[in-house]
Amino acid sequence: MTRVFSGIQPTGDIHIGNYFGAVQNYVKLGQQFGKDAIYCIVDLHALTNPAAYDPALLTQRTHEATLVNMAAGLDPENVILFVQSHVRDHVELGWIFTTLTPVGELERMTQYKDKASTLESVPAGLLMYPVLQAADILLYKADTVPVGEDQEQHIELTREVARRFNNTFGATFPEPKSVHAKNALRVPGIDGQGKMSKSKGNTIGVLEDMESIWQKVRPAPTDPARVRRSDPGDPDKCLIGDYHKLFSDDETIVKVYEGCRTAGIGCVDCKKMLMPGVERTLVPIQDRASALRRDSDAVRGALERGANEARAIAERTMSEVNDKVGFYRLGRLAETTASTK
Amino acid sequence: MTRVFSGIQPTGDIHIGNYFGAVQNYVKLGQQFGKDAIYCIVDLHALTNPAAYDPALLTQRTHEATLVNMAAGLDPENVILFVQSHVRDHVELGWIFTTLTPVGELERMTQYKDKASTLESVPAGLLMYPVLQAADILLYKADTVPVGEDQEQHIELTREVARRFNNTFGATFPEPKSVHAKNALRVPGIDGQGKMSKSKGNTIGVLEDMESIWQKVRPAPTDPARVRRSDPGDPDKCLIGDYHKLFSDDETIVKVYEGCRTAGIGCVDCKKMLMPGVERTLVPIQDRASALRRDSDAVRGALERGANEARAIAERTMSEVNDKVGFYRLGRLAETTASTK
Ligand code: SF4
Ligand code: SF4
Repeated sequence: MTRVFSGIQPTGDIHIGNYFGAVQNYVKLGQQFGKDAIYCIVDLHALTNPAAYDPALLTQRTHEATLVNMAAGLDPENVILFVQSHVRDHVELGWIFTTLTPVGELERMTQYKDKASTLESVPAGLLMYPVLQAADILLYKADTVPVGEDQEQHIELTREVARRFNNTFGATFPEPKSVHAKNALRVPGIDGQGKMSKSKGNTIGVLEDMESIWQKVRPAPTDPARVRRSDPGDPDKCLIGDYHKLFSDDETIVKVYEGCRTAGIGCVDCKKMLMPGVERTLVPIQDRASALRRDSDAVRGALERGANEARAIAERTMSEVNDKVGFYRLGRLAETTASTK
Repeated sequence: MTRVFSGIQPTGDIHIGNYFGAVQNYVKLGQQFGKDAIYCIVDLHALTNPAAYDPALLTQRTHEATLVNMAAGLDPENVILFVQSHVRDHVELGWIFTTLTPVGELERMTQYKDKASTLESVPAGLLMYPVLQAADILLYKADTVPVGEDQEQHIELTREVARRFNNTFGATFPEPKSVHAKNALRVPGIDGQGKMSKSKGNTIGVLEDMESIWQKVRPAPTDPARVRRSDPGDPDKCLIGDYHKLFSDDETIVKVYEGCRTAGIGCVDCKKMLMPGVERTLVPIQDRASALRRDSDAVRGALERGANEARAIAERTMSEVNDKVGFYRLGRLAETTASTK
């Protein structure tokens, strides 16, 4: 059996790098695995960033993240989509894992070291982040975790936690594997300076209107070898070429490759040819997002349903875990008493 | 308003140092504050000691700790007595506090440093221990925490966590104060080598039978100045004198002081005089413990009731906390949606 789990940061402000790198993959896995594809808006993890200490914003971002992912094709009737803080077993399992995980292993996490090095005071939540992540995944006994390659170390820690629990308390958890979406690290930023990312300010938003996107695409750098209109270029060395591969239909892509390599088209022509594909991809998402913004019951209903579905699985796992760890069960006194005599 | 909270380690194996140093004080505070005296068997904390990774033992110890404290006078009809893992808000609030607490502060805790220094691999649970402890206390908005002096630093951290939450999210938690039971550090071990403690193996168990106690008392060291039967002694420099102050009635204490200082009684006489008080104190506890061992429904019923009572308070706090932090509430879409438009 395959069960997929992925955490989604609570932000509605997603860009096309997120869309092609992650969301599209979630949608595809959802179509394939249905209710065994579990997606969790990780509001508890978000708190490890003090910027999340803004109640109105956290609520809004959680709502928006749900809405945007639904608009982008994640179907809550088909998959399980829910908010982490609605299923309290995450922190409970997280605590048990905290007692099983050496401090030293957490201090060695690259992401922790990177983030900690930028902070004057390092919140303990940052150190514990991967332990809660392990709980997220293992609570559902997920074996497949679609994540960016930067999360590989955390997934390795998750496997280590699973092994440690299994060795200590008996076989319980699978050792999950990460799967990297093929576009995960490949969507370049509009400045041509590497990967698209919010922190670099080189993004195209999934919900950005076409005019605003055009204002970014028009002046974007292209193949530096194409100095003059008459110089041939190479779409494989140009971010507009990369965008065509993401947005355009095959016919357009063929035209771009040929036109660019023969100097048959100019870069502005090429950029104009990109926009229909962008529009065809993003406008339906934007329309669905608008509709969901008017129909907030749909979002609430999805999260309510998702929380119930997630809880049903989580509670089965925790019931097993509680017995294996030996927490005192109120409903079981007959056995308990026998053992204390 | 006063509200008392104290955590009780899940062990049924308590000694007279625990009894006079802590349990008696819990009982007294319970008589004074009723349902505002909250006692929690901390099984989640116990897991920070890998020795607790024994399911049958953890269950048994939780049961025994409840039973012994009830036998020693803690009345679950009068106070709130429950098991930590039965109220899941502890770990939830604990996670929020984890995000608010700098790693550096936790690394500076003396108890952490002491324990960590003895271990090859330090579990993260040990580092997070005082954060969960802060959650235990603040979940009930307790302002009064009866603890040993060795916990003072953790209570100071709890105040710090309360201040930090209040400053970040608005006034929510009191800053609790510790109260030290007057006998807390004074019950000497039977070897006369300082405080009674399990690790030193110098204990008299609350559930130990009288013959076994006498076998420990008989050879116990006394005032070293009393070399011969005819030498006068000083009960204030003798652990048997200390025990008399804990166990004996006033009449006996007067006789001991006079007899010791005038060499009117020998040390063996004095030790024999101690036993009626020991018996008067411990035998009723032992009888109640035996009765509770035969009536496990009483223990289960107490913990079930306690869990419900604790949850009622905990859920009120968490509802307030969740709103202040801004977790998305399923029941509240009207407001949520308004803020996302
Ligand atoms: S023609 Fe298109 S693919 Fe070629 S360099 Fe210009 S923008 Fe890039
Ligand atoms: S007479 Fe009693 S109090 Fe005095 S030294 Fe002997 S044992 Fe201690």
